[in-house]
Amino acid sequence: MSKFMSERFASLKAYVPGEQPRDKSYIKLNTNESPYPPAPQVIEAVNSREIEDLRLYSDPECKHLREALAKQYDVTPKNVTVGNGSDEILSFAFMAFCSRGVSYPDISYGFYPVFADIHGIPKKEISLQEDFTISAEDYYNAGTAVVIANPNAPTGICLSAADVEKIVKSNPDNVVMIDEAYIDFGGESCIPLISKYDNLLIIQTYSKSRSLAGGRLGYAIGNEELIADLDKLRYSTNPYNVNRLTLAAGQAALEGQAYYDNNNREIICIREYTSNILLGLGFSMTESKANFIFAKHPKLNGKTLYKGLRDRGILVRHFDKPRIEDYVRISIGTREQMDTLLMTLKEMLA
Amino acid sequence: MSKFMSERFASLKAYVPGEQPRDKSYIKLNTNESPYPPAPQVIEAVNSREIEDLRLYSDPECKHLREALAKQYDVTPKNVTVGNGSDEILSFAFMAFCSRGVSYPDISYGFYPVFADIHGIPKKEISLQEDFTISAEDYYNAGTAVVIANPNAPTGICLSAADVEKIVKSNPDNVVMIDEAYIDFGGESCIPLISKYDNLLIIQTYSKSRSLAGGRLGYAIGNEELIADLDKLRYSTNPYNVNRLTLAAGQAALEGQAYYDNNNREIICIREYTSNILLGLGFSMTESKANFIFAKHPKLNGKTLYKGLRDRGILVRHFDKPRIEDYVRISIGTREQMDTLLMTLKEMLA
Repeated sequence: MSKFMSERFASLKAYVPGEQPRDKSYIKLNTNESPYPPAPQVIEAVNSREIEDLRLYSDPECKHLREALAKQYDVTPKNVTVGNGSDEILSFAFMAFCSRGVSYPDISYGFYPVFADIHGIPKKEISLQEDFTISAEDYYNAGTAVVIANPNAPTGICLSAADVEKIVKSNPDNVVMIDEAYIDFGGESCIPLISKYDNLLIIQTYSKSRSLAGGRLGYAIGNEELIADLDKLRYSTNPYNVNRLTLAAGQAALEGQAYYDNNNREIICIREYTSNILLGLGFSMTESKANFIFAKHPKLNGKTLYKGLRDRGILVRHFDKPRIEDYVRISIGTREQMDTLLMTLKEMLA
Repeated sequence: MSKFMSERFASLKAYVPGEQPRDKSYIKLNTNESPYPPAPQVIEAVNSREIEDLRLYSDPECKHLREALAKQYDVTPKNVTVGNGSDEILSFAFMAFCSRGVSYPDISYGFYPVFADIHGIPKKEISLQEDFTISAEDYYNAGTAVVIANPNAPTGICLSAADVEKIVKSNPDNVVMIDEAYIDFGGESCIPLISKYDNLLIIQTYSKSRSLAGGRLGYAIGNEELIADLDKLRYSTNPYNVNRLTLAAGQAALEGQAYYDNNNREIICIREYTSNILLGLGFSMTESKANFIFAKHPKLNGKTLYKGLRDRGILVRHFDKPRIEDYVRISIGTREQMDTLLMTLKEMLA
């Protein structure tokens, strides 16, 4: 740290993203990207006319995209705001709504404590149950804002919308943020609840189920006033936060929703297929409703699995953290990629 | 504001960007965009292969782009970081380096007070001289961080590198941020000074001289330690802050530097041409080294000029602020656009 840096960041520990190798020699199952390209509509929308128009600023209001998202989710454009990835939206939401602190599961998206720390927010980490499920009751009357990834990461385990509703209902004075990054792989979205509760904020992303991780596009859906608050922070840091090509891609992606729905069904199938074979190899795993599997093996600890796979050209994610150090998180790739993974694991176990 | 929003943002006033009409019926001279499209290399780089790769996250390290920028400016990659527009970089720099407050000219980029307010930073606004120039001495031993747009906006007036150096030298315990958004239109960059001073941070953007306002790409150049501090904040809010297509565009743009150099020379010519005719029409103006003219007329006040031009299909920017309310800021468009502007002004004055 330089001598000029504000002291309040002295103990801040930045988020460590999964490895992003620049070559393509790995089978990359470590950051939950989609194995499929964006919808044909996206490829068409980002054309040379759009690229020429890059000389002009993007629409700070993101009007057309908001309208399209509102239509998709049966809300109004005033219930939607968009960001440079859902990380940016989460950062704004932490700034805006967590002045009394924030509660979240001790095993969850590793960025939550970082957002809390950078914005000087008191943290309350709540232990997952022994089986890695979230007990909804633990979040009743939290006395702080709440953020829950649903499905949770890296476990993939999903709360029912009914359980989420109980949490939201019991915290009328605090915002409950539900991070639905992985909701399209078998979970039940809580977007329909936003008309009923003014303290519910849903955050979603184009990174996983819409094959646009590299386009950086996330959005929040909630009560008009919550959205206006987020927009105030957006306009006070970076009003043109979503670039032109990503705005075009995001809108076109919604037109290609049937393509994505099909991909997501396929990913669910491959998840179940892979899980079954892993079980046969002696692995155990959580019940994932996400585009990844969270698994461990009695004979190979997490680090050994991670390293062994990496040496053999397959990247998965390992978290060196109590209770989950024995696990690896494996993103769902194509059927062929998963077959290579399974064969490699068989060899490693032999 | 919702009842959930942190009280500390109650008095925050968000930045108001220039109008961004979604149709193209206006001659748009209000947000200092380039009238020319991005370099042919950019159009080529953002191809369908790149769009297919959007399923993958962007490189959080932005390695190739940093290397290319380092080469361009004769520094090392560790002296460079990149952001989602220079606004994002400025926001990080305010967070990081302004714990003792920040000094800046009272007439300058309207975002500086917003960044200060959102991050809870004490502000010291220093008056421009009567003729709108910055007196370098006013910033000696400031006792706070300093941010100066050079050339300044909306005046276009430029400090010499020698004057900037004096400011930097006299503030060894505080960071001096020089926002060189408009430096390529006739000013002298202070990048060569970064090897001499550990407290100098230069911020530049692709939005103006590289025709990529809608791509959202800015960068900071400075001492390794300052850059590492900014990256710590970047990795603590949004590690994938620059999307894949913009990374590709940013790198390709540097390969098209000759094209941009030519455009910038052309813009300077058109600025001088337009200024001369405006003088003949009775306007007076500052000595702009930017891609805009800051002008007033004894017979038409700023608001009347702005409204009259808007009614006639030409957008310029007017700031309803003491001392500059009589002025309009006119971005430099193509020669044809400026001829239309001049003809329109002639009619309005007749």
